[in-house]
Amino acid sequence: MNETTTITKDQRLRARAAKVVPGGMYGHLAAKSLPAGYPQFFARGEGCRLWDVDGRRYLDFMCSWGPIILGHKDPAVEEAAERQRREGDCLNGPSERMVELAERLVETVPHADWAMFQKNGTDATTAAVTVARAGTGRRKVLVARGAYHGAAPWCTPSVVGVTAEDRAHIGHFEFNDVASLEAAAEAARGDLAAILVSAFRHDLGRDQALPDPAFARRARALCDAADAALIVDDVRSGFRLSYGGSWETVGVRPDLAAWSKAIANGYALAVLTGNDRFRDAASRIFITGSFWMTAVPMAAALATLGELRARDGIAHMERMGTRLRDGLDRLAARHGIGIRQTGPVQLPLILFDDDPAFEKGSLFSVEMLARGVYVHPRHNMFLSLAHREADIDEALAAADEALAAVAARSGA
Amino acid sequence: MNETTTITKDQRLRARAAKVVPGGMYGHLAAKSLPAGYPQFFARGEGCRLWDVDGRRYLDFMCSWGPIILGHKDPAVEEAAERQRREGDCLNGPSERMVELAERLVETVPHADWAMFQKNGTDATTAAVTVARAGTGRRKVLVARGAYHGAAPWCTPSVVGVTAEDRAHIGHFEFNDVASLEAAAEAARGDLAAILVSAFRHDLGRDQALPDPAFARRARALCDAADAALIVDDVRSGFRLSYGGSWETVGVRPDLAAWSKAIANGYALAVLTGNDRFRDAASRIFITGSFWMTAVPMAAALATLGELRARDGIAHMERMGTRLRDGLDRLAARHGIGIRQTGPVQLPLILFDDDPAFEKGSLFSVEMLARGVYVHPRHNMFLSLAHREADIDEALAAADEALAAVAARSGA
Repeated sequence: MNETTTITKDQRLRARAAKVVPGGMYGHLAAKSLPAGYPQFFARGEGCRLWDVDGRRYLDFMCSWGPIILGHKDPAVEEAAERQRREGDCLNGPSERMVELAERLVETVPHADWAMFQKNGTDATTAAVTVARAGTGRRKVLVARGAYHGAAPWCTPSVVGVTAEDRAHIGHFEFNDVASLEAAAEAARGDLAAILVSAFRHDLGRDQALPDPAFARRARALCDAADAALIVDDVRSGFRLSYGGSWETVGVRPDLAAWSKAIANGYALAVLTGNDRFRDAASRIFITGSFWMTAVPMAAALATLGELRARDGIAHMERMGTRLRDGLDRLAARHGIGIRQTGPVQLPLILFDDDPAFEKGSLFSVEMLARGVYVHPRHNMFLSLAHREADIDEALAAADEALAAVAARSGA
Repeated sequence: MNETTTITKDQRLRARAAKVVPGGMYGHLAAKSLPAGYPQFFARGEGCRLWDVDGRRYLDFMCSWGPIILGHKDPAVEEAAERQRREGDCLNGPSERMVELAERLVETVPHADWAMFQKNGTDATTAAVTVARAGTGRRKVLVARGAYHGAAPWCTPSVVGVTAEDRAHIGHFEFNDVASLEAAAEAARGDLAAILVSAFRHDLGRDQALPDPAFARRARALCDAADAALIVDDVRSGFRLSYGGSWETVGVRPDLAAWSKAIANGYALAVLTGNDRFRDAASRIFITGSFWMTAVPMAAALATLGELRARDGIAHMERMGTRLRDGLDRLAARHGIGIRQTGPVQLPLILFDDDPAFEKGSLFSVEMLARGVYVHPRHNMFLSLAHREADIDEALAAADEALAAVAARSGA
């Protein structure tokens, strides 16, 4: 036996990727942003289980970073997709599924009078901004400092390769801070096109925050006063908090909303929904994409939304999320470790007290991974309908040992 | 019998869509940009045949506006996609297929030292511009006036909802006009990040033009002199003119190239390829998308590229395109009608002389459609490997009658 026998398939693939992909991998799926030991390459998914290329199986709490909401290979979705595939997918125009899906969204989402389909969440947020500008004839768009709204030049978190002009008309406020929002709106007075706000605060490595209803109402009022568009970015949270859009939970309706991720259980689709006030503007802009009208993802979305309702999916994810959160809180207290779990239970985030460099979080995550549970040390996670009580309990059993490891390290 | 019995399914779907989609439909697949009689909604595709929702069958020359290059439901592609689907598609990271596909592109495309994957052609052209700016530290990007490079604010053909700043650093030249290119480069002197140029001129409603080799070489030389990036937009033409990128036909290699459409025979995928000079820049920008790493489109791309080579696809499309072009020229001459067929034969475009409002073109297209042949009156079309001699001859038989109709109208 020589030492090459210890090289994993994941390592071999990383070495090959390093030659033909800049940096070996890029974007949110790059494992280099995770502690050592996390796999980069995956082979298979079933329900809430995931296998990497070396055959290691994980109980998965990332759900492909959001898209998987019913579980991998949900039979109802796969059957609908296969049925559509036998007919047609990428044709010279949309299929009947586009009309059905737009109708379904208009029925389900109270603010929505119409829908437009794209491929990326970034397509939908960018389209929302464009529609808002077209509809108002104004330019300024206010976003929360640190919020993620996609990876186009106007919004990507990095400024590398981006010009100042790409963000010339972006203003900033602090999420849930009414005074900062009012100040930003005042600074944009006479040129305010939109306030663009995440359904809740889910910035990387920071405690999550649900929208304060007073903040949400003030955002709505400021847009109304300025005749601007209120845009909710529901790309990450859509269909996990409320069937009708996440701000239904605080009783505030946007003019426009961007959706993607979970809408088709892993099939590539994004949507911009809007109300009649912005219908004409939406019909005047020019946006398109080669694959925006493919029929299979729309058939998958119809099945996903149907299953989600039929199986009371949000209530299920809330129950599982509560079981996980309560269990982790109990375990952390027993181990004498301070943890913070914030935001909606369906999108768990576990941060450790006194852990500015995420060392405790990384150790916890690595210990979970070693026990076959895939969690993220800094980014919110996602639950699905495939997560059952026994899965949560399995994760809690692993967490008991992982927290013991954190306690041992912290106490040393 | 009352008159409602004459309403088609397409008309019913259009009426429903008008309520829930702005303008009823948007983008390049909106049938309202086509003459009356064209269907908006499609049901099915097989090889080079397409069925609309009313069951009308067409011999198709649009190939879903480019993506379909082997024919609908190509067995090799569908088998590869199905095999990958049984494993996994949308996971917590890429599959092995990503590495294989990047390696395949680096092997096949002479300028490419690396590849990055996205979903839309616009993603790839935008990423190219971002990489060029990151690599050069400069801002100006020169594009041909009237060229289509996608539907993001910096490049979409409409300025509705777009701000002046979105295009602050875009300069213009005329395709194939060396003097205009030199003048644009001179105007950008000291701040030139890139020259972005379509593989050939394929502007809507205008004669196509292959790149003049002297123009292509001058673009390369200007980029070299200014240490800027030469970017070829091969989204529309990629894999139909040359396996290694369309400018291989003129012996000029770009630094970066954008690809999409035909790469996976209808599965949603886009790619940015680049050389080592821009590898570091590409690794420093932040771009990502929820579905960019889905494995099924990559498996489909590997199968598509394999089939294309194994079946000598480009030569086949050239033969079929030449048969179509020569046949149409003969027929037009026989009917005494002046037509212009320009650009590469694999991407046919038929424009009529003395037809500024495309009235002859529209009449011709409608007459073709009535005979079961789907052609476009103003936009370039696409051939696939599923188009055989008998299909071309069937189209020519229809064209004989359609040209007679045009001649009758013109002579009247």
